[in-house]
Amino acid sequence: MNGAERLIATAVEDGVEICFANPGTTEMPLVLALDSVGGMRGVLCLHENVCTGAADGYARLAGRPALALLHLGPGLANGLANLHNARRARSPVVAVVGDHASWHLSADPPLAMDIESAARPVSDWYREIASPETLAADTRAALAAARSRRGGVATLVVPHDHQQAREVGPAPLLAPEPFPPLDPARIERTAARLQGAKSACLFLGGRALWGAGLAAAGRIAARLGAELLCETGFARLETGRDRPRVNRLPYFPEQAQEVFDRFDTVVLCGARPPVSFFGYGHLPSRYLSGHPGAVTLAGPEEDAAAALEGLAEALDAPPAAAAEGAAPPPEPRGSLDTERLAAAVVRHLPEGGVVVLTAVSSAAPFSRLAHTARPHTQIALTGGAIGEGMALAIGAAFARPGIRILHLEADGSAAYLPQALWTQAREGLPVTTVVCANRAYRILRIELDRAGIERPGEQTGRLTDLRRPAIDWPEVARGFGVPGEAVDTAEELAAALERAAASDGPYLIEARLP
Amino acid sequence: MNGAERLIATAVEDGVEICFANPGTTEMPLVLALDSVGGMRGVLCLHENVCTGAADGYARLAGRPALALLHLGPGLANGLANLHNARRARSPVVAVVGDHASWHLSADPPLAMDIESAARPVSDWYREIASPETLAADTRAALAAARSRRGGVATLVVPHDHQQAREVGPAPLLAPEPFPPLDPARIERTAARLQGAKSACLFLGGRALWGAGLAAAGRIAARLGAELLCETGFARLETGRDRPRVNRLPYFPEQAQEVFDRFDTVVLCGARPPVSFFGYGHLPSRYLSGHPGAVTLAGPEEDAAAALEGLAEALDAPPAAAAEGAAPPPEPRGSLDTERLAAAVVRHLPEGGVVVLTAVSSAAPFSRLAHTARPHTQIALTGGAIGEGMALAIGAAFARPGIRILHLEADGSAAYLPQALWTQAREGLPVTTVVCANRAYRILRIELDRAGIERPGEQTGRLTDLRRPAIDWPEVARGFGVPGEAVDTAEELAAALERAAASDGPYLIEARLP
Repeated sequence: MNGAERLIATAVEDGVEICFANPGTTEMPLVLALDSVGGMRGVLCLHENVCTGAADGYARLAGRPALALLHLGPGLANGLANLHNARRARSPVVAVVGDHASWHLSADPPLAMDIESAARPVSDWYREIASPETLAADTRAALAAARSRRGGVATLVVPHDHQQAREVGPAPLLAPEPFPPLDPARIERTAARLQGAKSACLFLGGRALWGAGLAAAGRIAARLGAELLCETGFARLETGRDRPRVNRLPYFPEQAQEVFDRFDTVVLCGARPPVSFFGYGHLPSRYLSGHPGAVTLAGPEEDAAAALEGLAEALDAPPAAAAEGAAPPPEPRGSLDTERLAAAVVRHLPEGGVVVLTAVSSAAPFSRLAHTARPHTQIALTGGAIGEGMALAIGAAFARPGIRILHLEADGSAAYLPQALWTQAREGLPVTTVVCANRAYRILRIELDRAGIERPGEQTGRLTDLRRPAIDWPEVARGFGVPGEAVDTAEELAAALERAAASDGPYLIEARLP
Repeated sequence: MNGAERLIATAVEDGVEICFANPGTTEMPLVLALDSVGGMRGVLCLHENVCTGAADGYARLAGRPALALLHLGPGLANGLANLHNARRARSPVVAVVGDHASWHLSADPPLAMDIESAARPVSDWYREIASPETLAADTRAALAAARSRRGGVATLVVPHDHQQAREVGPAPLLAPEPFPPLDPARIERTAARLQGAKSACLFLGGRALWGAGLAAAGRIAARLGAELLCETGFARLETGRDRPRVNRLPYFPEQAQEVFDRFDTVVLCGARPPVSFFGYGHLPSRYLSGHPGAVTLAGPEEDAAAALEGLAEALDAPPAAAAEGAAPPPEPRGSLDTERLAAAVVRHLPEGGVVVLTAVSSAAPFSRLAHTARPHTQIALTGGAIGEGMALAIGAAFARPGIRILHLEADGSAAYLPQALWTQAREGLPVTTVVCANRAYRILRIELDRAGIERPGEQTGRLTDLRRPAIDWPEVARGFGVPGEAVDTAEELAAALERAAASDGPYLIEARLP
């Protein structure tokens, strides 16, 4: 095997099955290795941020890494924003960056760049393969880093000559670093605190929001009458009827602070201490900085699911929480607004569905209603770098074959990566994209309101407006090979969602909002 | 004035007139300052790489900086690839990055990132404004750095609280660093070398490719019978009938090496020593490394135009080179190929036009024919980070009001930043985009041929193919508000170019190539 083949073969042995790629000349040996090695599927994306966002979406639902294959420093640069989101999600992602032949770098060719400096801000682990002798071990180390308890982005840089090196040997499998052992005393102390609480909530993140972790959280909540809260930008959330109800922390700081102020006890599990998205002079950065009853059961690098199970036992919580089974909203009628849009989507969602939730201002009503939908999984924007949704949906579709992905996206964000639709079309992915078209960077308008600016000037108006011209989303989608339509009413939206569900591949719905 | 107003006012005093912006919450004071200060136009772009690419295009033709206003680390990350191109072009660009309030950063909010580490690889100058007291002086320093003889990208990071600080004072204008004085002995030595040469060429870059520099180069070439060559990825080239003929160095290394091997004397002026785009084991990185007759008249950080004028005097070159006046190709007919496409475009180009030349494999015939067109200006891809063209065209249109910009782009590249078309539509910019649609990453197919791989495997085929599905470019353009059409023949292309020229705003032509 040459170096490129060894790298691919090593990843395949580690269980990697898919590579989202935008290759260039320096990655051609790796592309050829996909054919000669076998076992890994290459998926072409027309922009590197599609590659990295798709790898993030895949990792969140599959729980194991995909590769993102990127071309040199500029290719990595194009994919950085979604690696930032992946890092914030603690998604196991391995970014493989081809580099110039090692002997060619000193010539400073046009595409040369300080790759390490660009990669470090988004990489939990970084290494450049220094020789063919270490190639397999370096690849193992990258995969183990991505799959460690900490999770996150591993960036592996592979010079072109090392890809071409002949007879490159293997390296033994590396086990990912496990979670540190849980401290039983911490569980006991937390149980005691909760038993003495008058009003308690569990603030959940990471592995506390799905599977065994969420089930244990639900038992605890039912036992104590506590509320379950989750991070605004969660990586993965299981919700819907019959599942423990988890309320999403509001985006705006006054509302978020108000939520925490309702509780005398806040238990953090799998989540970082919550902070405001932005700093506002009159508000603290950290919502819990002055809170007397905040305790941490498990940090984001600990086994939050096991900690919750231990806590449920310590509290003698009955094994299965009673289903809440809240009724979904009535069928919405009339002109679309965000409430009616949310109701239509909630009623439509099939059991076991996946929602990619990257809209912000348009998605708040959906988040409030989602617990009344059929049981489903959501993935959200973790790092705030907008425009990831269409790429996340690609990854989600590969991680959950046979399941239709519903993507709720804002129009400002949707304009970031429209070429992701092409990959959805090429691969025939069952993704329904709902573009919430309010024709503005609405969040900025809200910020202007919040700052007391009632009549912004002409330039401010233009720089926050998407109305002139209005993007025709179905036309953009058709251009990239995805059918679509625009809807103005709740009834039209419901019908369009049905048409999308009945189709084999991707479908885009422009939901025209006021 | 608050800090944001002071920053904008300082830039306006320095002669900055335009700001390509994709703002977020942390940049709102700067957006509001565009209204309250006046004198600077904000242009909304829907992706940060559009902002930075437009600033690059503007700077190349206007010769002075535009601002690119970017949102935090992730916004900068999205704009890095075109800052890389701008750095390689030595374009005076000032990237203004809003950051979190300085007191909020320690909370590590979701969008926080190590901005400096991400910015350094593309920044010739970097500074974070540490306090309102230094804000104006820091802004002056950024502008002076961008406008220095060296040229290049200055990145200025402005925390949100410093933007909001009140009564922020001014700072005196800073003159940009001038060129170092020329060494007359070097000019004399170069003249002597050229007079003793049997076959000489001048390898030109930077300021040697337009205006006084190019005129002097033309005089020298005519006097000696020398050939003028330019960098493959030049920043700005003036060419066409009645101008000195400059041949573009071929992209592929065998051809480029062959060109240099034809000369016993190669004089570098304004250009770095030429290197291969990529390293191939059987070829050297540096085309001139073994060349006995290579001399440098002026490096890219020196005043190449003045050096050429001095050289022309030293050689007693007559003041005006005789016009070559080569005839344009005959009107092409029949199915489009890259030769016919080039002929149609060359015949169509108006005097004083601007060509954005970012296609690679499809543009070689155009580059060979361009000296037969009416006199015009070209800007090309300098750093090899593809996808900049639509953004360069935006900047070019603002730098040259009233002139129609012709943009020759490959389809693989065009898929990178299609949302740039929206800004073209909003601003009514006279840009004709010709997408050379060969439905492949053709350059990679050529690399496979070069590597002797005749029948690539199934995955390699798919990862270099853009055919399934074929992007419908006129539909994508219409979605973003730009009219367009597809053409299959040279006659249709000629008619479409005329329709585009007769329109007020942007127009897209999909030229279907084999």
